[in-house]
Amino acid sequence: MKLRRSDRMVVISNYLINNPYKLTSLNTFAEKYESAKSSISEDIVIIKRAFEEIEIGHIQTVTGAGGGVIFTPSISTLESKTIIEELRDKLSESDRILPGGYIYLSDLLSTPAILKNIGRIIAKSFMDQKIDAVMTVATKGVPLANAVANVLNVPFVIVRRDLKITEGSTVSVNYVSGSSDRIEKMFLSKRSLKAGSRVLIVDDFLKGGGTINGMISLLAEFDSELAGVAVFADNAQEDREQQFDYKSLLKVTNIDVKNQQIAVEVGNIFDSVK
Amino acid sequence: MKLRRSDRMVVISNYLINNPYKLTSLNTFAEKYESAKSSISEDIVIIKRAFEEIEIGHIQTVTGAGGGVIFTPSISTLESKTIIEELRDKLSESDRILPGGYIYLSDLLSTPAILKNIGRIIAKSFMDQKIDAVMTVATKGVPLANAVANVLNVPFVIVRRDLKITEGSTVSVNYVSGSSDRIEKMFLSKRSLKAGSRVLIVDDFLKGGGTINGMISLLAEFDSELAGVAVFADNAQEDREQQFDYKSLLKVTNIDVKNQQIAVEVGNIFDSVK
Repeated sequence: MKLRRSDRMVVISNYLINNPYKLTSLNTFAEKYESAKSSISEDIVIIKRAFEEIEIGHIQTVTGAGGGVIFTPSISTLESKTIIEELRDKLSESDRILPGGYIYLSDLLSTPAILKNIGRIIAKSFMDQKIDAVMTVATKGVPLANAVANVLNVPFVIVRRDLKITEGSTVSVNYVSGSSDRIEKMFLSKRSLKAGSRVLIVDDFLKGGGTINGMISLLAEFDSELAGVAVFADNAQEDREQQFDYKSLLKVTNIDVKNQQIAVEVGNIFDSVK
Repeated sequence: MKLRRSDRMVVISNYLINNPYKLTSLNTFAEKYESAKSSISEDIVIIKRAFEEIEIGHIQTVTGAGGGVIFTPSISTLESKTIIEELRDKLSESDRILPGGYIYLSDLLSTPAILKNIGRIIAKSFMDQKIDAVMTVATKGVPLANAVANVLNVPFVIVRRDLKITEGSTVSVNYVSGSSDRIEKMFLSKRSLKAGSRVLIVDDFLKGGGTINGMISLLAEFDSELAGVAVFADNAQEDREQQFDYKSLLKVTNIDVKNQQIAVEVGNIFDSVK
């Protein structure tokens, strides 16, 4: 289909945003939109500039045969901070306190606009890493892992706490369940992760760290390695032998059940060294 | 920030794609990019045309005070069919058969590019409906519901088969578990769905229909109503009292465990009347 330049720019930028981290040759666009490769090159220059002006990401041009363009999504530190501060205010709402001092999070982790932003922020903070898959544990981690995987354009794998017949053969490890100090099992379908993968672990709430340690030991069973750990929120109250580095968007510093108050701060994701 | 027209078109189209079904006034763009409202109007005309040319969606202009533009994502029937045919071929791969005649689906439902497309196709087929939320049951339905909710820009709600302390008060209903013919319970957090919502139910695999009937009875408990049911695949072998209409992307017509063959057809989503 032959398109005008202005139209081409809209459709090419849409394509790049929907296909992050993927090398696409300029010929693909030239053929699709019946244009000279040199025109597509000029389009890319404009799109690249626009993307950088509003800081939604970078376009890298790879020259030579087999070359093309790759879009790497990004987000400005200012936008990230604004988003995280809004989330901090939401998480501080007193009606989130549940009996037992738990915090209700499910509404935040099931709103697409919020999840997209969380995905962009976490993906950005690991953009210099090679990541082949995002791992999480069912159920609440799934939308988070999905959001991060969308931005990184890699599959996500779901570790389960129960055994489902529809997963086929599984590998299991034991882990210490933080909330109960009991030894429990977690399972991962053998087919779901290739050997040699570099994996980013994502979870909603970090307490004792037992669940994440369990996932790290699963990685070893799959001959895969840890690329990093990111959590939506961590609980600074908790005594935790920190056996792994992690990045958190938010940090819950105090839950006062009696007075129905939750104290939340911005997490360590903006700390330069962690 | 002052932007050139070409740059504005890239950033405005990106904004609209990321904020579907949301009314945004032209003044928002005019102020953000320091342009006359008439220039933004002209940008929108070009973007609208480009979106329609490649059939990624429609831009509706609402006039008057409180007016603006709304982007409704779409997908062409040709593109939908190509995507579904590719999925049909993937689902027919013989190594998906698990002991007991189950089919391994998890790889398809954890690949962002596939999920995005499934989300677009399902959302498109309900685009004339008012939908306030997407509902599914944990765990495998979650990425699907998330994908559809992303396109419709509404929250998704996750029904659980177990009771979690972090969900707060819940409402439960009994349902007939198809695989075992037993009566089981499903739970939904009281906070997760507002009364009066119109809900689209999404699930990965429709067999006896017990799970979906359970979710439909949950809707009544929440004074909400069913807007529709969509499944990734349904099993045509199964005897099913069909108490609800549904749309399916794929239909599994036969699973031959002995010869390791799965017969899959395109589902009913393209049937005009269902």
